[in-house]
Amino acid sequence: MNALFFTGDKTFVLQQQTPQPPQPGEVQLRVAYCGVCGTDVHIYHGAMAHRLKLPQVIGHEVSAQIEALGEGVTGWQKGDRVTVRPLQPGPDDPSDNGQRHIGKNLTFIGIDSPGGMQSHWNVPAHTLHRLPENLSLKLGALIEPLAVACHDVRLGEVQPGEQVVVIGGGPIGMLVALVARQKGANVLISEPNPARLTLAAQMGLATVNPRETDLVTAVERITDGAMADVVFEVSGVAAGVQAMTQVARARGRIVMVAIHADPKPVDLFRFFWRELRLIGARVYEPEDFDEAIQLAASGALPLDQLITQVSPLGEAKQIFENIDTNPAGMKYLLEVN
Amino acid sequence: MNALFFTGDKTFVLQQQTPQPPQPGEVQLRVAYCGVCGTDVHIYHGAMAHRLKLPQVIGHEVSAQIEALGEGVTGWQKGDRVTVRPLQPGPDDPSDNGQRHIGKNLTFIGIDSPGGMQSHWNVPAHTLHRLPENLSLKLGALIEPLAVACHDVRLGEVQPGEQVVVIGGGPIGMLVALVARQKGANVLISEPNPARLTLAAQMGLATVNPRETDLVTAVERITDGAMADVVFEVSGVAAGVQAMTQVARARGRIVMVAIHADPKPVDLFRFFWRELRLIGARVYEPEDFDEAIQLAASGALPLDQLITQVSPLGEAKQIFENIDTNPAGMKYLLEVN
Repeated sequence: MNALFFTGDKTFVLQQQTPQPPQPGEVQLRVAYCGVCGTDVHIYHGAMAHRLKLPQVIGHEVSAQIEALGEGVTGWQKGDRVTVRPLQPGPDDPSDNGQRHIGKNLTFIGIDSPGGMQSHWNVPAHTLHRLPENLSLKLGALIEPLAVACHDVRLGEVQPGEQVVVIGGGPIGMLVALVARQKGANVLISEPNPARLTLAAQMGLATVNPRETDLVTAVERITDGAMADVVFEVSGVAAGVQAMTQVARARGRIVMVAIHADPKPVDLFRFFWRELRLIGARVYEPEDFDEAIQLAASGALPLDQLITQVSPLGEAKQIFENIDTNPAGMKYLLEVN
Repeated sequence: MNALFFTGDKTFVLQQQTPQPPQPGEVQLRVAYCGVCGTDVHIYHGAMAHRLKLPQVIGHEVSAQIEALGEGVTGWQKGDRVTVRPLQPGPDDPSDNGQRHIGKNLTFIGIDSPGGMQSHWNVPAHTLHRLPENLSLKLGALIEPLAVACHDVRLGEVQPGEQVVVIGGGPIGMLVALVARQKGANVLISEPNPARLTLAAQMGLATVNPRETDLVTAVERITDGAMADVVFEVSGVAAGVQAMTQVARARGRIVMVAIHADPKPVDLFRFFWRELRLIGARVYEPEDFDEAIQLAASGALPLDQLITQVSPLGEAKQIFENIDTNPAGMKYLLEVN
């Protein structure tokens, strides 16, 4: 088997290994494609070193076929086409409030344990979701980020006819916009990168470049002053945090999707004054994977357009360099088998 | 009639005047008591000058009896005992989302128009709520701040058995704590002022002084690590904003009650990581007044203990000075008639 080890310092090493048999409760997957997540890019840049055990295989956006079943695994067969929900809940903590997908002792497969950038990958059977026959394995590698978007939109309770503003047009922002539109919302995506704006427009999304047009004015114009019912902050920058409270109407919901490593100034007065709501949203629950798979298989979303490049596992270094130099890029997939 | 005019520069002038008859749609009230709100204290200190027309009568926490009815007013009689919901909605704005109590063109009676610190006060009949016979006019003057607390607790969706943490033990914080306890919640109030802590303890509330005991540790201890289901930020200071995200459990609700004049750093990562919710809450809706009146009349809340001082209208200057020098004080009432 082939395994791509991240060894630190922006370096990957492809190694030949002997596949390990799956442990009880695990399945051995033959990975087809593994997408590169923003988190993987952070790891490549040296972040999250405290959570990795170098050298380590990373990656968690996977499509695969089942190769072998560990002891006690039922309901699956060799050859089944699957994707992986890469969450391994730990012991319940009283502060978890029953939310196992964000539990205090949760570990994330592909960061806290080996990931999918290897031809044979053993994962717990409880993480599997079945891919329907009419969904390509290439698009199957987009299910994990699509499930993030489904989770965000679900927690934002987006309703048909509502006005949605997505701040930030990276891969997750684009997917949030597409899922919200599929729910019947009117979607405006705010993004400074012209190439990303072009892509969004090609997918039929309304766009605004906040460096050229004042976002508040733009939202006022397209809504006749009604402003946004739901705002998704996916930019991760202070300007996005500032804009999110300005474009929301009274009782508007603001979904916090981005990872803001440091505390940022928030207009709490406006939360009070207009009774705004902020809704934190992280990863996904099983139903979000179910919805993502159903949506992707339906063909209703232009997911093909989000795949920027597909390259063999051995060209990972080039892929990560491309991501760094091409901010217009969306999803990059590694072809693992 | 007597009218207490605020003339700016921490000065009040009591004047004798001839009462004006109520206009169509208005009632003329004979004001019994008028409580002093934190907002009135801000006005006394020179804030909100742009909204006042000096000299102006302020005050909006009122109990009264109806003295005369303007043209077209039905459903009310001379002698009826009432309190006033001091909101005057303006024209609907598209961004109001149907939320008339926080509409963009809303004006606040007692700030944007004359208030209740006068013996005869004309107000729109739509602002009235009836006080039951078994509720004293003194406690009737607490209905308005109690309605704020009912609104906050309602928007926080406090459920029986939930753990509530109230950050800030001023009058509104105390009322929020009492209403939340009445809903069956376990309530902890965090407040640095020892006299306020003593009062809270006298009312049977659990307390913590965050200057002496780490608030996070205190909440961990009393909840066996489960942390808070609902947090009310009523302190208005940065330390409260910092604490609010630390004491909430996964999917915990944080109700933003305080007025934060300037943006403050917020731990947005924790909103993401633990899927917290922030809920802005401002003033009240008619149902909150109904609930406040029912609660006060039931005798279930120790509201008497919140009345620090009752003084004649002519001693307003002394009352405002007392408020400034006695941070342990709670509600101060002016006896108007």
